[in-house]
Amino acid sequence: MTEDADARRTAWMYLSRVVTGPCPALSALIDRIGVTEAARAVRECDLPESLRGPTELRRGIDCAERDLETIARLGGRVLTPDDVEWPSWRMLALGQLDAARDQSAVVPLVLWVRGPLSLPDSTEQALAVVGARCSTGYGEQVAAEIVGDLAGQGWTIVSGAAFGIDGTAHRAALAAGGTTVAVLGCGIDRPYPAQHERLLAEIAETGLVISEYPPGTTAHKHHFLARNRLIAALSDAVLVVEAGSRSGARNTVKWARRLGRPALAVPGPVTSAASVGCHRMIRDGEAMLVTRAEEVLDEAGPLRLSVPDRVVADDRTPDGDEGLVYAALPQIGSRVPDDLAELSGLPLSAVRAALPALEMAGLVGSDASGWFRLTRTGRSAR
Amino acid sequence: MTEDADARRTAWMYLSRVVTGPCPALSALIDRIGVTEAARAVRECDLPESLRGPTELRRGIDCAERDLETIARLGGRVLTPDDVEWPSWRMLALGQLDAARDQSAVVPLVLWVRGPLSLPDSTEQALAVVGARCSTGYGEQVAAEIVGDLAGQGWTIVSGAAFGIDGTAHRAALAAGGTTVAVLGCGIDRPYPAQHERLLAEIAETGLVISEYPPGTTAHKHHFLARNRLIAALSDAVLVVEAGSRSGARNTVKWARRLGRPALAVPGPVTSAASVGCHRMIRDGEAMLVTRAEEVLDEAGPLRLSVPDRVVADDRTPDGDEGLVYAALPQIGSRVPDDLAELSGLPLSAVRAALPALEMAGLVGSDASGWFRLTRTGRSAR
Repeated sequence: MTEDADARRTAWMYLSRVVTGPCPALSALIDRIGVTEAARAVRECDLPESLRGPTELRRGIDCAERDLETIARLGGRVLTPDDVEWPSWRMLALGQLDAARDQSAVVPLVLWVRGPLSLPDSTEQALAVVGARCSTGYGEQVAAEIVGDLAGQGWTIVSGAAFGIDGTAHRAALAAGGTTVAVLGCGIDRPYPAQHERLLAEIAETGLVISEYPPGTTAHKHHFLARNRLIAALSDAVLVVEAGSRSGARNTVKWARRLGRPALAVPGPVTSAASVGCHRMIRDGEAMLVTRAEEVLDEAGPLRLSVPDRVVADDRTPDGDEGLVYAALPQIGSRVPDDLAELSGLPLSAVRAALPALEMAGLVGSDASGWFRLTRTGRSAR
Repeated sequence: MTEDADARRTAWMYLSRVVTGPCPALSALIDRIGVTEAARAVRECDLPESLRGPTELRRGIDCAERDLETIARLGGRVLTPDDVEWPSWRMLALGQLDAARDQSAVVPLVLWVRGPLSLPDSTEQALAVVGARCSTGYGEQVAAEIVGDLAGQGWTIVSGAAFGIDGTAHRAALAAGGTTVAVLGCGIDRPYPAQHERLLAEIAETGLVISEYPPGTTAHKHHFLARNRLIAALSDAVLVVEAGSRSGARNTVKWARRLGRPALAVPGPVTSAASVGCHRMIRDGEAMLVTRAEEVLDEAGPLRLSVPDRVVADDRTPDGDEGLVYAALPQIGSRVPDDLAELSGLPLSAVRAALPALEMAGLVGSDASGWFRLTRTGRSAR
């Protein structure tokens, strides 16, 4: 019952444009009936009441072909959860949040990407660095020093390409010859802010510029709040360098905490308005105080290492959902998640959560054909 | 069996000079056999092995009379645990620490005092402000602002009269017309540091200069570490404004934590060596980050209020040690702690701990004659 890969890709792209940003009801529908069937249901308005409103405005817009052309012209690509380059492990915690509490707490349907790197590979060891748009010389100096140290040690710097600390973080990573990822709240064909057009072009040359919003989407305040969850999800920790009293950085820190990522903040003079938000987050126990790169590593480093240690050390056969999914994988050859869901009797979302965990445990792998079992010495025979 | 008050006072002063600073073995002996008997035993070297060494050097020095003259010439006085002006409540937590873990963890034998105020009254609402001797303009500005705000609201500022933040805190309290208490690590007749002679004289005019070291004692490093426990004990909270990487302020914070006082620290630029100690204490969970006076009150204020609320609301007859001590008080008239210990069968240290708790509960009071029961409408008939 493997669906045609192109049809599935077109369905993901179509649905992503219909809702433009996170939509828990649609994600739930896709989990339940699969992406191509969900696309058909939306097109034909064969929908539960809860999905009619959110899809009404744009369900007639079906420009996947044109979007693919646009993105190809930019030298970019689109990633869907079916792709090997999809950052499954990074999205794991996001997929387990309760979307009833926050309408943004769902995995994006697609990611539009510019840049030469693999998204999962480049975010394997990643630190988000965010902060005040109205930064001070002090904040910029500290951000540049910490980023320079960590980028030089192979850490990817994830940020939002905004003025101030975001821009400083990207630039310092580039200057150190490191990798940096910009996550936008608009289409990746839109340089936002406009003054950062050149910076974004530089990032796309050696790093990645990504967005869940289709090409042409303009920046909106609520896009940035949803975007912040991806900055946190794609990173091992979130570092705030300067934040005013109403900074958006606090929202990124909130996502970090919900996703189990350490939230870190750099203090500054108590006489500086640009440090008020950092001090409040430290004081309220929302963020840990850090002053330099080594302290960032103290918080961001061990967590990343402890998880594989724990799983790999466990040499038993997987149990629970992971056991069911593993049993549904053939001894020879591979299967796609939809088939695994059907064979295991689990919802697709549970299959999607189990696969990266099995991968972490060194039991499965994936390529363009789907997921397959690994033997002790490598990939099982095909 | 009430001992002559003068004889007891002379005994306290004599013993204080023999050991010069905290001596757990001597404090234990006094608890066991009373202060006059302990003084006799020391004079005659009728002592357990553990006390022969610590008393050997100065047990021949008996200059209580001369000390009293010296202190009178300075317009000062000496306080002993028998005095109504003894800060019993403030010393409560210190008396309950385990001196086996830290040789300084005992209540001082006496306190030498200069200044027009009552020590318990003036430290009823008190904040310790300590910090780097090598302070920066930033730290001095922040210390002066917080101290100015709190001194103006009736808070007494306790510090150590050192260069840098200590001196800034005392001066800002004086400038705000507030009360400030300097706790020294040398005799109160010794201006230390010498450049602060005039500052100390000003403090002694409107506030208090105190020390557990007899007149003439010169400053030593270990005196300052022992002194720090008194700064913490006499305050509701300890605030650190700037501290280098090896600052003595961390020692005062350690005492604050052991004594159950909130420890607070002001952050600063991570590029400033003078804030390294504050950041480390916040990061290690040893101190709470604060940025202004209101935040200091958030931490220091409620604690102080919650204790009496809890005790006063409890309208039952006291039980445990407090019940035994209360029962040992006469219906009419008063008793000194030594007598209460004998009558109740409790060690003197337990009596000393119970009395302030009974006082907090509004059940007992004290004056020069000793401790007495309070009726609902005031002091019981004598």
